[in-house]
Amino acid sequence: SHSINLAVIPGDGIGQEVVAEGLKVLSAVLPQDVKLETEEYDFGAKRYHATGETLTDADLDSLKKHDAILLGAIGDPSVPSGVLERGFLLKLRFAFDHHVNLRPSKLLPGVATPLAGQPEIDFVVVREGTEGPYTGNGGTIRKGTPHEVATEVSVNTAFGVERVVRDAFARAQARPRKKLTLVHKNNVLTFAGHLWTNIFTKVAGEFPEVTTDYLHVDAATIFLVTDPARFDVIVTDNLFGDIITDLAAAVSGGIGVAASGNINPSGEFPSMFEPVHGSAPDIAGQGKADPTATVLSVALLLRHLGYETEAVRVEEAVSADLTERGTAVRTTAEVGDALAARVAS
Amino acid sequence: SHSINLAVIPGDGIGQEVVAEGLKVLSAVLPQDVKLETEEYDFGAKRYHATGETLTDADLDSLKKHDAILLGAIGDPSVPSGVLERGFLLKLRFAFDHHVNLRPSKLLPGVATPLAGQPEIDFVVVREGTEGPYTGNGGTIRKGTPHEVATEVSVNTAFGVERVVRDAFARAQARPRKKLTLVHKNNVLTFAGHLWTNIFTKVAGEFPEVTTDYLHVDAATIFLVTDPARFDVIVTDNLFGDIITDLAAAVSGGIGVAASGNINPSGEFPSMFEPVHGSAPDIAGQGKADPTATVLSVALLLRHLGYETEAVRVEEAVSADLTERGTAVRTTAEVGDALAARVAS
Ligand SMILES: CC(C)[C@H](C(=O)O)[C@@H](O)C(=O)O
Ligand SMILES: CC(C)[C@H](C(=O)O)[C@@H](O)C(=O)O
Repeated sequence: SHSINLAVIPGDGIGQEVVAEGLKVLSAVLPQDVKLETEEYDFGAKRYHATGETLTDADLDSLKKHDAILLGAIGDPSVPSGVLERGFLLKLRFAFDHHVNLRPSKLLPGVATPLAGQPEIDFVVVREGTEGPYTGNGGTIRKGTPHEVATEVSVNTAFGVERVVRDAFARAQARPRKKLTLVHKNNVLTFAGHLWTNIFTKVAGEFPEVTTDYLHVDAATIFLVTDPARFDVIVTDNLFGDIITDLAAAVSGGIGVAASGNINPSGEFPSMFEPVHGSAPDIAGQGKADPTATVLSVALLLRHLGYETEAVRVEEAVSADLTERGTAVRTTAEVGDALAARVAS
Repeated sequence: SHSINLAVIPGDGIGQEVVAEGLKVLSAVLPQDVKLETEEYDFGAKRYHATGETLTDADLDSLKKHDAILLGAIGDPSVPSGVLERGFLLKLRFAFDHHVNLRPSKLLPGVATPLAGQPEIDFVVVREGTEGPYTGNGGTIRKGTPHEVATEVSVNTAFGVERVVRDAFARAQARPRKKLTLVHKNNVLTFAGHLWTNIFTKVAGEFPEVTTDYLHVDAATIFLVTDPARFDVIVTDNLFGDIITDLAAAVSGGIGVAASGNINPSGEFPSMFEPVHGSAPDIAGQGKADPTATVLSVALLLRHLGYETEAVRVEEAVSADLTERGTAVRTTAEVGDALAARVAS
């Protein structure tokens, strides 16, 4: 395709600022003959306060027509916890069947990590995105009374687990180390645990070159700080993936550089790319936010749309910039400009 | 009471070795006039293979008569995942209503941590022990087929949440910093999240001196590696507690020194004390296991039974030993002997 029709959702807080830089780099890296069309959407706290809407059916119809979606951040303290998360972010992941939630972690030379001894970190987490404890199943009885009971139901299907496990095996197969770790808690969550473990074992048979192992999620958090180099590709459920990818981001340079893709591999719906960080209202509008995570999300977007050369160019620009960054404080736009200049040259 | 009637469950792997050292230190620290009676139980993999039993009603009746339980570790690769966990460890926590799962994390001077810059770490996690995703509710349909659906149900009651939240507030109130952090995921698990958050807010009103805050579990893992000093007391659900206490142990000296108590505060049933680590079959029987976590669990046991002076003596002995440990390799028994000698003097 010689055009990209992109939905842009700046969202709340620093979302506006970082998305502007992401687009700057995207424009700079694309070949002259690729036409970039963008349409901006006003989802987030402001629209919610004005209209009570988070994401309507008409919104979904409109978003569906794009090739991909770039999102900044959604969330604001003025909105009760859960409203935008369930009403926008998760609604979109479910509506567009974003079952592969891709979160790479790579510690680049010169980047600060809270871990001693600058360990080697280069792995990717494939987090299931449409099942598990995120389905919103469950409920409450006798709310607000001393006899309240609240349940959360984790729903796991053979269909849903197998497709994400298969995706993770294919990704492991394509990497030099070819190693895949299943992370779950199959000794306690035995129903879901057996399903995940059995499917993992079955699909492993089709990928004889991939080395596999298994870790309980609690043990995985230990290894993420004591021996992150042991990981190559991790596949895990939605909630465990949420938890370990924040930890993974923290040890590999912080959420300022952590990118993610909410991917629908079949292409039936557009995939969405976003930094792992939130809207950080405390520093919004001050030009202090680091747009690097958004720019790396743009690289994932490019790769997903088939622009592999351009994706690599963006990633190399970020690597070079991070390595040379030093301690000089730069504004959001200065980082974006520097990255755009690198990819253009 | 001038006697302690202790149930001892060495269990599997290194459990045998570390419990022996725990008992050595316990005997050494107790005043002459306190009679220590112990009864050993053979739970674990060996008994399971011989009899198919993990924990019978008769076992529970017998255990019930003790003042407290000291456990080494349960688990062996020869037993399918989940059998001993659900059939012994969790069965006991549920049967004896061990709803306060207490896990202190303190980084002692000189102890190695994977974090750069030797941060200050001194907090305690109060993990709910009888509810949440650990109830074993849920199930499977169409097992083994492409249409399998497996569910896990997290059950949360006002009764269960309030008692553990209240316990955590009382513990925070008794500490110098008086700070309590609720860790949950109330933006996604909104049913359980609202219950936890509402009860936390309500009980906070009764403890005006305690400073409170809230963190999503994913953000909590970030702070555990970037700013662990921010934590004083954490209260959280069963599964989040499982995950963050392993991470907490990893950053504060490793699971070799992480102690825990499964506490029934009313005293209706005996409480159980155990190291956080597992049975480590790879190093079992070689005198290589570090008994420190078990010895620190003995300190929690002493405190629970009202022997505060003795508990502090054990903790101080461990601190002194750890500080002086250096790089010399000692056997399990040598560490136990050194600690017993310190507490006796
Ligand atoms: C904001 C929240 C709904 C979201 C999640 O839990 O998935 C976030 O933490 C993430 O990791 O993308
Ligand atoms: C062994 C397992 C059942 C247990 C748990 O998940 O609670 C362990 O990880 C722990 O933290 O005590």
